Formats: sequence, structure tokens, C-alpha cells
Amino acid sequence: MTATARKVSDSTLRRLSLYLRYLESLEEEGVATVSSDLLACHTRTTAAQVRKDLSHFGSFGKRGFGYPVSELARRLRGILGLTRPYRVALVGAGRVGSALFAYEEFRRRGFHIVAVVDADPRKAGRRMGDVVVRPAGELEAVLREEAVDIAILAVPVPAVQEVLDRVARAGVRAVLNFAPTELQVPEGVTVREVNMVVEMEGLSFVLAGEGAGG
Amino acid sequence: MTATARKVSDSTLRRLSLYLRYLESLEEEGVATVSSDLLACHTRTTAAQVRKDLSHFGSFGKRGFGYPVSELARRLRGILGLTRPYRVALVGAGRVGSALFAYEEFRRRGFHIVAVVDADPRKAGRRMGDVVVRPAGELEAVLREEAVDIAILAVPVPAVQEVLDRVARAGVRAVLNFAPTELQVPEGVTVREVNMVVEMEGLSFVLAGEGAGG
Repeated sequence: MTATARKVSDSTLRRLSLYLRYLESLEEEGVATVSSDLLACHTRTTAAQVRKDLSHFGSFGKRGFGYPVSELARRLRGILGLTRPYRVALVGAGRVGSALFAYEEFRRRGFHIVAVVDADPRKAGRRMGDVVVRPAGELEAVLREEAVDIAILAVPVPAVQEVLDRVARAGVRAVLNFAPTELQVPEGVTVREVNMVVEMEGLSFVLAGEGAGG
Repeated sequence: MTATARKVSDSTLRRLSLYLRYLESLEEEGVATVSSDLLACHTRTTAAQVRKDLSHFGSFGKRGFGYPVSELARRLRGILGLTRPYRVALVGAGRVGSALFAYEEFRRRGFHIVAVVDADPRKAGRRMGDVVVRPAGELEAVLREEAVDIAILAVPVPAVQEVLDRVARAGVRAVLNFAPTELQVPEGVTVREVNMVVEMEGLSFVLAGEGAGG
């Protein structure tokens, strides 16, 4: 799988996630097959794109019969690495961090927050669910003790580069960053960003265009 | 501006946001000009891409002298529609919604949450900062009274399509959706998504590839 899979683009990867989400809803409803048209409609792409995306990963189903829902879902879970749970550390237990800690979709998809670290010494020792907040000085130790796969960074912008560097030095190779800034990413580490401000500016751009364009 | 600007791709739009963020940090430091190389490095793209992106919006600066920081920032703010504040409604005052309400970057960039609506009747009447939470039945009325430009949907998946339809009928044409599902988008409405699960799956994909690839 990996030689092919690792070359897929970010946009393909996003579509695979969306296909999987829709397939799983079909699985729950007991639907056995699905057409590329329907998959496309529910993920806002074209049937040709669906066929192209899925052809990278071998052949599924027969022309005219649609895709087998459960088999395709299983393959996509394999491709996306969702066949095992992941151990996640949350760095930053402020408002954004606390919301992420409580975010059920993460748990449901196998991303388990097993450690929380915060720079505020008053927060150290507090419980969040089953997890005890640890002080920032123990970051590297916590990441190693808890065998963390993925770190979520929900820290203020001025702190995030240092936190990223420390997390990388502790051997974590996958990071989800919520701080709205660009980072120098250490070698061997993959960082993905959730940048809510960029999305809002995508909207203001459209509204500005409408206003000016009449 | 608009005829050209409205045709730019999503990825260009994202880069324009990132250029602006970096330019504003340079403005704060009092830097007068910046090279395409430096802009590219700080936004993780190539200098050729920077020049191409910016050439869509007219000529800036002189070859060999770099881009004038303040002029370029002002132009980008104009292109991105950031020359006026936006009135934002938050639909859903749960954990994600509350975190978004408190998210300072929104306010800092001119996105002001002026209304909060929640389906839980026990939340109606509560204060969040200067805003009083309104019940779901008043959604359309609130959107009109408050002249809302943008709605943020932080509601559960089963509710989000209906909320989107109601928001659209009330005349809101720009929506930021946090519910991890695909939506049928009413005509004339632009929806942008913040899908944290998709980002996490981008990471698990990489980790799975590393493991299997050795």
C-alpha cells in the first residue's frame, strides 16, 4: 500500500476521508453498494474524480454494479491508517484545548487524548476526564511515558514554535497545530493546521466580492 | 477588483491570507520592503508562486527592490474584504461554540460575534460576554435583527443541514461549518468547513505509511 499511498495529494486525502465518512453512514443503514455518482454527490466532487481517486488503490467492484460499501470502507480505513487507535497528547488546556479534549469525533475515530500539558502552573495536577494535566517542564517526559503518536498544539502563537521543536525532539512525528502562524517544521515531522482565521477570510473575500460586484 | 479576485482558487486565497499575516508582522516591526523569497519562505511556498499570486492583483514594487510591505498589506486586506468589520452569529453554544466565542483571533481580524443561538432552552437568556444567548426558534429573527453577515455553525451533525437551510433562508450568504459532515449547500451561499477529523486522518495516514514502509 504505502509506496502508492504516500504519494497521494492532500486534496485526494481529504476526499478519501469524506468518502469514508459517507460509506460508514451507508454501512450503518445496511446499504451494500453505492455508485460513484452518489459518492460524488455526497462529497461534492465528480463521479470521474471518485473513480480516479479510488483507482489509485486497486479495483473495487464491477462497472455498472457500484462499489461494495463495506469492502471499500475497510480499504479506506486501511489506507488512512485507521485500523488502530492513536495516542494523542494535547498541549495547551485553554479554551481551544478544552474544547478539543471534549470533542467526541476524535475519540469515535480512534484518536485518544492520553496526556494533557499546560504551561500554567495552576493547571498542573487538575483532572480533565481521566487525564491529569502535567506542567510544561515535563512535556518531553510525558510524550515518552505515554508513547504519544500525535501532538495537538493549542498554545498561543508566541509559544508554538518552541513547543513544536520540543515535541519533535521527543520523537513525535505528527502534529496538529491550531496556532494561527506559520512554523519551521523539523525534518521528519508532519504538521497539519486548523486555521479558522483563514477560513473566515475565505468568507469575507466572497462577501467583499459580492458587495463590490453588485 | 472583483471580476479578477473572485476567480482566484481556494489555494491562492489561503496563501493570500498567509502573506497578509506575515506582512502585518513585518509592519509591526517597521520593515518597509520584503523580497518574494522571504515571503515564500515564511508561508512555505516558492518565490515564483508568490510572484504569480500577486501578479493577479496588479504590479507591486520594482524588480530587485522587493514588495512594499504596507502597500501590499493594504491591497491584500482590500482583496480579502478585511477593510470593514463583519457581524457574525454563532449557532451552537456547546464546547466548540464557546471556544470559538472566546477565540481572540476572530475579533482581532474584524469578525465580531454579535449573536449566539442555542437549541438547549436552558441556555437561552444566559450571557456570553456582551451577548445574550437566544433560543433556536428565534434564529431567523436574530439573524435579521443583528444584520448578520456570517454564521458559524457549531451544532451536532444531525442538526446542521436544517440549521444551514434556515440560516440561508434568513439571507445569510456566508457560513463557517464545524460539524463533520457534508452539506447540501443552498444556492447563493458559500460554506467553508473546519474539519478537524479530516486533518487528524491526514496524520494517521502519514503514520500508517511510515510504519508499513519501514
